[in-house]
Amino acid sequence: MLQCDKRILDCVSSPEDLHALSVPELEILAAEIRRQIIDTTSRNGGHVASSLGAVDIILAVHSVLHAPKDKIVFDVGHQSYAHKLVTGRLDRFDTLRTYGGISGFPRPSESVYDTHPSGHASDSLSVASGLAKAKQLSGTDEKIIAIIGDAALAGGMAFEALNYIGSQQLPMVIILNDNEMSISRNVGALVKHFGNVRAMASYRDVREALQDKLERGGRTSNAFAEFGKRAKEATKQMFIPQSMIYEHLGIVCTPPIDGHDIKGLREMLELVLPMDEPVLIHAVTKKGAGFGPAEEQAERFHGVGPYNPITGEAVSAPGKAAGIGARTYTQVFSDAITREARVDERIVAITAAMEGGTGLKAFRAEFPERFIDVGIAEEQAVAMTSGLAIAGKKPVCAIYSTFMQRALDQMIVDVALPNLDVVFALDRAGLVGDDGPTHHGVFDMAMMRMVPNMKLIVPSDQRRLSDAVHTALRLSGPVGIRYPRGSAETVYVDGSAEPEMLEVGRSITVREGADVAILAFGRMVKAAQDAAGLLAESGITARVVDMVWAKPLDEEAIQRAAETRLVVTAEEGVLEGGAGEGVLEVLSRLGCTTPAITLGIPDRFIMQGKSDLLLADIGLNPQGIVDAVMRVLPQQDV
Amino acid sequence: MLQCDKRILDCVSSPEDLHALSVPELEILAAEIRRQIIDTTSRNGGHVASSLGAVDIILAVHSVLHAPKDKIVFDVGHQSYAHKLVTGRLDRFDTLRTYGGISGFPRPSESVYDTHPSGHASDSLSVASGLAKAKQLSGTDEKIIAIIGDAALAGGMAFEALNYIGSQQLPMVIILNDNEMSISRNVGALVKHFGNVRAMASYRDVREALQDKLERGGRTSNAFAEFGKRAKEATKQMFIPQSMIYEHLGIVCTPPIDGHDIKGLREMLELVLPMDEPVLIHAVTKKGAGFGPAEEQAERFHGVGPYNPITGEAVSAPGKAAGIGARTYTQVFSDAITREARVDERIVAITAAMEGGTGLKAFRAEFPERFIDVGIAEEQAVAMTSGLAIAGKKPVCAIYSTFMQRALDQMIVDVALPNLDVVFALDRAGLVGDDGPTHHGVFDMAMMRMVPNMKLIVPSDQRRLSDAVHTALRLSGPVGIRYPRGSAETVYVDGSAEPEMLEVGRSITVREGADVAILAFGRMVKAAQDAAGLLAESGITARVVDMVWAKPLDEEAIQRAAETRLVVTAEEGVLEGGAGEGVLEVLSRLGCTTPAITLGIPDRFIMQGKSDLLLADIGLNPQGIVDAVMRVLPQQDV
Repeated sequence: MLQCDKRILDCVSSPEDLHALSVPELEILAAEIRRQIIDTTSRNGGHVASSLGAVDIILAVHSVLHAPKDKIVFDVGHQSYAHKLVTGRLDRFDTLRTYGGISGFPRPSESVYDTHPSGHASDSLSVASGLAKAKQLSGTDEKIIAIIGDAALAGGMAFEALNYIGSQQLPMVIILNDNEMSISRNVGALVKHFGNVRAMASYRDVREALQDKLERGGRTSNAFAEFGKRAKEATKQMFIPQSMIYEHLGIVCTPPIDGHDIKGLREMLELVLPMDEPVLIHAVTKKGAGFGPAEEQAERFHGVGPYNPITGEAVSAPGKAAGIGARTYTQVFSDAITREARVDERIVAITAAMEGGTGLKAFRAEFPERFIDVGIAEEQAVAMTSGLAIAGKKPVCAIYSTFMQRALDQMIVDVALPNLDVVFALDRAGLVGDDGPTHHGVFDMAMMRMVPNMKLIVPSDQRRLSDAVHTALRLSGPVGIRYPRGSAETVYVDGSAEPEMLEVGRSITVREGADVAILAFGRMVKAAQDAAGLLAESGITARVVDMVWAKPLDEEAIQRAAETRLVVTAEEGVLEGGAGEGVLEVLSRLGCTTPAITLGIPDRFIMQGKSDLLLADIGLNPQGIVDAVMRVLPQQDV
Repeated sequence: MLQCDKRILDCVSSPEDLHALSVPELEILAAEIRRQIIDTTSRNGGHVASSLGAVDIILAVHSVLHAPKDKIVFDVGHQSYAHKLVTGRLDRFDTLRTYGGISGFPRPSESVYDTHPSGHASDSLSVASGLAKAKQLSGTDEKIIAIIGDAALAGGMAFEALNYIGSQQLPMVIILNDNEMSISRNVGALVKHFGNVRAMASYRDVREALQDKLERGGRTSNAFAEFGKRAKEATKQMFIPQSMIYEHLGIVCTPPIDGHDIKGLREMLELVLPMDEPVLIHAVTKKGAGFGPAEEQAERFHGVGPYNPITGEAVSAPGKAAGIGARTYTQVFSDAITREARVDERIVAITAAMEGGTGLKAFRAEFPERFIDVGIAEEQAVAMTSGLAIAGKKPVCAIYSTFMQRALDQMIVDVALPNLDVVFALDRAGLVGDDGPTHHGVFDMAMMRMVPNMKLIVPSDQRRLSDAVHTALRLSGPVGIRYPRGSAETVYVDGSAEPEMLEVGRSITVREGADVAILAFGRMVKAAQDAAGLLAESGITARVVDMVWAKPLDEEAIQRAAETRLVVTAEEGVLEGGAGEGVLEVLSRLGCTTPAITLGIPDRFIMQGKSDLLLADIGLNPQGIVDAVMRVLPQQDV
C-alpha cells in the first residue's frame, strides 16, 4: 500500500502507483474517485452517469497496464474522468470543462496519457486498430485497449473496424462497456443482441481454444508466464456456457462479466492481454453507479449542469428564469416541428440517438409512429431520409451540427443529387461551450454551401427559427436549418405570431445605415444590432442585415451593401468556405470594389469555455464587430 | 410468349413484359442481354464484369416484381445494365456513359424505374429502409428490394442499416449478390464469414418459422396465395442445414443459392416477398458470367475501356501511345510513393478497396506488410491512420476524391484536431468523365480548406505530383494532395529530376504578364498557359501562377496579382467554398480592390461525358478563361 495519510486518490500521481495497490485498496480508491467526480461535476456540470459507470473498468485497466507506453483509447471519452484523476490531473480537476481548464474528453494536448482526442462516437476501434497494426509492424510489445460503450458499437465505423481487426487478427483488447443504455434508449438490433447473448460456439470450443493458446506458451510476456497456471483454472470458471466466439468477425468475445468487479476485470485482462489477439471483454456496468440519483435518472445525468451533490437536484443557474427570452432554440424547434406535423401527416422526424438533445421528445410523444431513432448512426439517418422522401414522406433529420460531419457524402449523393425534399435540422451550430473542439458546430455552413441543390437557413432568433421550419417543409429539394445551443435571441419582437413563409434567398434589413453594412448570419444578427448601437455613438451609421439564408445568398442586399463604404460579414462558422466568402464572390461577380471584411471562426480549433467568452476572444461579439469596422473606416476619414 | 420475330430483348418495352415469359425464355433473354452488354461496352467501355454477373438476378426480380410501383434499389449501381435494358432504354443503350447519353448508374432523372442515384457503395440498404419505413407508415403494399454486393456489405453504413432494419423488422428483401470478389480482392472478416456460412439456427428452426408464416395466410398478395402449396414443399428443399437466421440482427438469411439460376431465384423471391419481413437472399454469382474473358479477368473487366468483343483484348485509344505525356497521375503517384517508401520505412499505404485504382499495386508488391486495404470502409481507412500516426508511422491514405466525402468527420476529429502526420492522396479529383456526378471529385478542395491544421497541395503536372508526395511526407500535420484522373500534364519540362521540397504556401509563376494574373490550381495551370498564349494574340499579357497550394494560399502572390488589372482564379472544383473564394478573402483582407473573377465548377451537379467536353461546357478550358478575361478587360480600355 502507498504510504499516505490522506485519501488514496491524493497519493496517486500516475497510474503506475495503482500497481502497488491491493484490490480492496483499488475499491476504496474507486469510491474516492466517485466522490470526487460528484463533487466537481455538481459544481461544473458534466457527463456524470457514464463517468461514474466506468470508474472500475478504468482502475482495473490502469492497474494492469503501463500507460503511457500501453495505449488506452476511449470511445466518446466523456466516461474518462476517473482516467483523468489517476493520470496526474487531480489538482486541476476543479477546472473540468471550464475556459482554460481541463477538458471533459481525452485530449492529447492535455496529457500524454490521452491517446486520442475522443468526442465523436464509434471511432475508438479504428484508432486502436491503427495502433495495433503499427505495433505489429514495429514488433513492439505495448498493449492496446479500446473502451467502447454498447451504443457506440452501432456506429458503422465501429463495425468497419471490427471487420478489419478480426480479419487481420490485430493484437488488441476491446472492452465493451455495456451499460444497457445508450444516451437515451436502446436502439437497434445489435443492442438486442447484447441483451440476449447466445452461444455461437460451445463452452467447450472456447475453453479449448483458450487453453490451447495458454499451453502454447513461449510468449514473451512475463505477466503471462506468472499467470499461466492460475489462468487455466480461471478459464474454466469464467467461460460459462453463454460465452461465445464472435466468430464470424474473428474476435474472441468473453461472456458478460461484472464491470464493477475490479478483481474480476483484472483477472480477465491478465488472461487475455498476453494472447496478443483481438479479444472483446464484455463488461456489464450501470450508468451512474455509486450515486443514487444518477443511477435512477441516468438519462438526465448523461450530460448535466450543476446539481446538489447529495440529492442530485438541479441547481438552476441565475438568469435562466422563465420568459420568452429564456427558451432555447431546441425548444423552439421542438414546438415548431410538432406543430407542423399536426397539419402534415407526411412529416417524419429522424434522429441519431439524440431524441432529447434535438428536442424530439414532444414529437415522439405525439407521433410515436412517425418518430425514428436509428441510434448513433448518422449515415443511416441521412441516407434513410432519401428512401422516405422518394416514397413521399417529408423527413426532418435532426442531428447536431458537429455530428452531421459524419454524413456529408450521404447528404450529397443520396439527398442533394436526386434533389429530394428533406429538411436537415442542425442543432448546436456554432460554438457549443464546455464540450470544446470536438463538439463545436462550426463547419456546417461551409460544408452545406458547397452542395448543389442545397438551401440553408440560418435563423437569427426564435421567431425566424419557427419560420424556417415552416418554410423548409414547404420548399422542394433539401433545406438545412442551423441554429445554436442555448437560449434563443429575440431580434424580432412579434415573437408569438403564426409562422410565416420566408422568401428564398431574401434577407431582412433590421436597421438602416449608410456608412457600413453588416451582413449577419444567425445569432450574429443580434451582435450586429448591438454593434450598430455602439457605432452610432462614434457617429457611424451601420445598416444591419439579417441574411436569413446562407444559401442562396441575397445578391440584391449584397449589391446594396456595396453602396455603403464598408461591407462586413459576420457568421458563427469557419471563415474558410463560409458564407462571408460567398458574399465576397457575389461582390466580385457584380464588379463591386467596396472594401469588405469577413468575420467568423478563424482557421484553428477553438477550445472549450463559455460561448460568450469564446466569441469575445475571436472578435465575434458586438465590440469585435465595432473594432473591425473602426480599423477600416478611420482610414477613410469618417 | 411475346409475339416477336426479333430478339426477345427487342420486344421488351417494360419489365411488365417479363411476366409473360417462361423461365426458358427468360434464360434466352439473359443470353441476349449479355451479348448486348458486351456489344455496347466493347465500344463504350463500362462496368462489364459486375453487370454480366447480375443479369439473372435482375431478370428474376423484374419478372416477379411490378416496377416502378415496386422499388428496386441497386447498391453502387454499376451492375444495373440489364435493368436498363429491360426498362425501356434499349434504343439508347449505345449512348451508355457518353455525353448526353444514358448513365452507367441508375439515375432517377433518367427513368422512373431508377429509384435512387446509385454510385457510392453501401447506401442501398439505408435508402431501402426509408422506403420500407414509408410503406409501413402508409400501409401500402409495394415490395422493396435492395441488391447489394458482398464487398459493399463491409461498409459501415450497410451495417447501420441492417441494424435498424432488423430491429424494426422492416418489410424488405435484400439480395446479397455474392460474387466472392470485391473490386480487387476479398477484404475483411465479413467476407470470410460469407465464404464459410455456419448454422446460427438449426434447419428445423428456420423451416418451422417459415412454415408458420406461410400457414398464417391472410396475406393480400395473390402471388403468395397461388404459390402457397408449392412453397411449403419448396421450403423443405431450399432451407438446407447451412441455412441460418442472421439472428443477432433479426434478419432471416437464406442459404447460398445459385445467382444464375433464374428459376431458383424466382422461387425464392416468391417465397420470401409475401413475408413482408426483412429477408436476405444469399445469391452466389460469378463476375463476368457468360463472357469468358471477363470471367477470367474479372478485376480488369470491373471497369474497362473499349475491348475486342470476342477476345476481350483492350482496344487502345488513339493518342494514348507511350511517352512521358501519357503517364497517368495515378502512375506518377504510384512511382512516387514506392520510391519514398524505400527510404522511409515508417511509410504505410492505406486504401479502401482501390488497390489498383489508386496505384498501390506496386507498393504492395514491394512492401506487402506496409500495405493496408480495409475494404470499402473509408471511415476506417481514415480513422485508422490516426492510430498509425500516433504510433509513429507515416500513413498515406489513398482514396478517390469523391469517396473521401465519406470520411470528412474522421479527417477533422481523428487526424486534424490532434494534428497528426497523415498524407491524404486524393485520386480522381476534378471531373472524372464517364461515371458522372456521383464520381466527379469536385468537393474536396472546399471540404479540406475548411479543416484547421490541414494543408492541401494541388499539383499541376507529373513533376509537381512527385514533389508533392515528397513534400507531404516531410511536413508535420495532415497534408492532402489532390490530382485528376487520366494522363498527367507536363507544365515543367525538367520532368525527370529528383523530387524537390515544395515550400509551404509558395506558388510558382510560370509565365509573366502585366495585364491580368491568372492564379491557377492543378490542371488549370496548363489551361491557363494556353489561355495566356491566346490572350497574347489580342495584345493582353497574362501572368500565369501555379498556386501549388490550395491551403495555405500564397498571399504574396495574390497581392502581386492585385497589381495587375484583373485577377482570375481557375480551379477544377466547386466555386462555393473553393480556393478562388479563398483568394477573394485574401484580397479583401489585404484591402485590394482589383477586379477579380473566380472560375470553377458551377453550383450544380455535372453530368457524365469526356472531361475535356465537360470542362469546355463550363468554361474551364483555355477559351473559357480567355472569354472570362475579355468580358472584363475590354471595359477597361485595353
